[in-house]
Amino acid sequence: MGEVKALRCITCGKEYSPDDVEYTCPKCGPRRGTLEVIYDYETVAKQLTRESLAADQERTMWRYLPLLPIPDRRFIQPLRVGYTPLYSYDEYARELGLGALYIKDDGQNPTASYKDRASSVAVIKAQEKGKRVVTAASTGNAASSLAGFSAATKLKTMIFVPRTAPEAKVTQLLIYGAKVFLVNGSYDVAYDLAAEAAEEFGWYNRSAAVNPYLVEGKKTGALELAEQMAWNPPDVVLVGVGDGSVVSGICKGFSELQKIGLIDRLPQVIGVQAEGSAPIAASFSKYDGNTVAIDDIEAETVADSICVGKPRDIVKAVTYVHANGGRFITVSDKQIMAAIATMARRTGVFPEPAGAAPFAGLLKLAAQGDIAGKSAAVMVTGNGLKDIATARRVAGSAIEIEPTLAVVKEHL
Amino acid sequence: MGEVKALRCITCGKEYSPDDVEYTCPKCGPRRGTLEVIYDYETVAKQLTRESLAADQERTMWRYLPLLPIPDRRFIQPLRVGYTPLYSYDEYARELGLGALYIKDDGQNPTASYKDRASSVAVIKAQEKGKRVVTAASTGNAASSLAGFSAATKLKTMIFVPRTAPEAKVTQLLIYGAKVFLVNGSYDVAYDLAAEAAEEFGWYNRSAAVNPYLVEGKKTGALELAEQMAWNPPDVVLVGVGDGSVVSGICKGFSELQKIGLIDRLPQVIGVQAEGSAPIAASFSKYDGNTVAIDDIEAETVADSICVGKPRDIVKAVTYVHANGGRFITVSDKQIMAAIATMARRTGVFPEPAGAAPFAGLLKLAAQGDIAGKSAAVMVTGNGLKDIATARRVAGSAIEIEPTLAVVKEHL
Repeated sequence: MGEVKALRCITCGKEYSPDDVEYTCPKCGPRRGTLEVIYDYETVAKQLTRESLAADQERTMWRYLPLLPIPDRRFIQPLRVGYTPLYSYDEYARELGLGALYIKDDGQNPTASYKDRASSVAVIKAQEKGKRVVTAASTGNAASSLAGFSAATKLKTMIFVPRTAPEAKVTQLLIYGAKVFLVNGSYDVAYDLAAEAAEEFGWYNRSAAVNPYLVEGKKTGALELAEQMAWNPPDVVLVGVGDGSVVSGICKGFSELQKIGLIDRLPQVIGVQAEGSAPIAASFSKYDGNTVAIDDIEAETVADSICVGKPRDIVKAVTYVHANGGRFITVSDKQIMAAIATMARRTGVFPEPAGAAPFAGLLKLAAQGDIAGKSAAVMVTGNGLKDIATARRVAGSAIEIEPTLAVVKEHL
Repeated sequence: MGEVKALRCITCGKEYSPDDVEYTCPKCGPRRGTLEVIYDYETVAKQLTRESLAADQERTMWRYLPLLPIPDRRFIQPLRVGYTPLYSYDEYARELGLGALYIKDDGQNPTASYKDRASSVAVIKAQEKGKRVVTAASTGNAASSLAGFSAATKLKTMIFVPRTAPEAKVTQLLIYGAKVFLVNGSYDVAYDLAAEAAEEFGWYNRSAAVNPYLVEGKKTGALELAEQMAWNPPDVVLVGVGDGSVVSGICKGFSELQKIGLIDRLPQVIGVQAEGSAPIAASFSKYDGNTVAIDDIEAETVADSICVGKPRDIVKAVTYVHANGGRFITVSDKQIMAAIATMARRTGVFPEPAGAAPFAGLLKLAAQGDIAGKSAAVMVTGNGLKDIATARRVAGSAIEIEPTLAVVKEHL
């Protein structure tokens, strides 16, 4: 079972005992003082071996328990989270000039997004800490997955969403029984209100950027990818980037696998941002290995799940991708939209816009010859059913006909 | 690998070689002449044992290949189909007066419905037969799953839908690259046109009721349920019923497991129909073990996936459930709607209306004391994300607030 050795500030490096600090480094503050979870890797290396994993019948992310901040199984919910399928496409890879093409479909998680990997950890930590309420600010996958994972527990869920939140997404929250506050203000206002309420009322705050344990859930996608590829991970891994927590988790996952000797080399992690929402990519391009620049923007992109102008996990994202030897690229909304249809038609995996973004990035790099001959994996972080309206714009049209064979024939 | 011994007419009992007949018994016609796939069960019993299955690392429905009509793995698509999670809820079971409560979530299939189990078989059979086009008439899960499973192949998909088809469902078809004909007519008109087109143009017809192989895919839910419960299946299994193919498949699955000695007793299969769409339940109530009455109706229910007034697989459904010792019950649309929210809130599984129907049936039977002390499993055949509009009607409302803690406090 996972034993946390320390929580270490990403900026000043100070280490805290998990009992001494809850969310972020008091010295560096909530934005620069995000904490990383440190384990005793020598112990983990003994507990988590290729042999132990091969023998493990558990087909969820909990198979990596020694590398997760969960001391026992008591509060693990029954919902099957993680160990999502990895598909490979030989012919399509050749067509794109790649050595191999893999797609990891996290749309098949219980609430249909990658965020289930983090929310499942949040409801465990909340219960370990004896909390009765969990909260989050989000209109999207983080909130709906928190509501879904709380549903089978005694936890109450309080969600803060900006008043512009799409009704369909609010519906998903409400159907799981969450109390939903529609805040007269922006996402950032809702985010800060959730944090204040957590503080004031003693609720557990699920915000992935300030809660050190959530990135731990998010790293499991990398662990699975490596294991599903028999510990020979691809040359590059592409993932969509909004607040920066998922890409941070994936970098940390690979790095820890190398630390405990399960992989020999790191795949290059490529964070893909939408052009209209790329503050992390911008910061990365200026990063000199010392201070991470934080310049928030007004973000706008069709890919709502990665539409983040004030990325709360920017410091980790830039630092980790730099350490990984990876990079960031951007894609246009037009490329993202086109990638939804291309991906669905060529791979059978229907992604939400944010899930299509890394595939758009792959197509862009392939067209530029940037990753010729390489093996590449794309992390699909959300199911296309989450945003049918956007898919409709690129799906094309049905053919209206009278019910006769002759008319059908005319259209063949 | 599965070897089909014969195709046997459900009505006259005549056996055909798979090479001699494609869809239904020529003598009994398309409605009464549906065919059942017969295997050499002695051979299957040797190939498929508790031990062989325990050692099998494949976590998809293809682990049951000896009991499927697939001679080799050549055309199996990469998409992870089947082996969906089974959840149990001890506390909730006690509350309902049940011995145990299980939920099998088929909303986690690649295109988010149970129909993937059948469509995955259809694209294999189409390719085995050298077909280049597959067709189906449906606005719903069958068509979208066919389009999804065809996407990664060279097969073209032609879908016929009534002109009243909801735009969102048409979008899902189009995004996978299907050619969609919006037929000026009812579902029945579209169904017949698809069959005619298949005949005329040599396309492969996916219609589950007339294609004997599709029920084979649909039976795998029963095989998994039994195996996931360590070959000690529950007392009752509840499943929603529209055209009758899924419930037929589930009965056949349990029956075959008993034949090959993997289970000792049959769970009682309870087919749940919506009150406004219950022609199979009506026929079953009159069934004397001889002739299945077929009285089509104009169906109406909120649960679109089981809204079928002219159930094409009624003969198998009635015959199989009778042989199983099972029964049919009906639930109101109001009960189905309420069950969507209850299920999401108590189990973390968000079902589409047709997936909530068997849960509504469970709640009805539990309230009547009909299944007191029994262990019960509910088959959830579709993801709630497929029909957000209906969920919205029972989800409740968000609370509009100004962004201050004081206002939040007022609402706690």
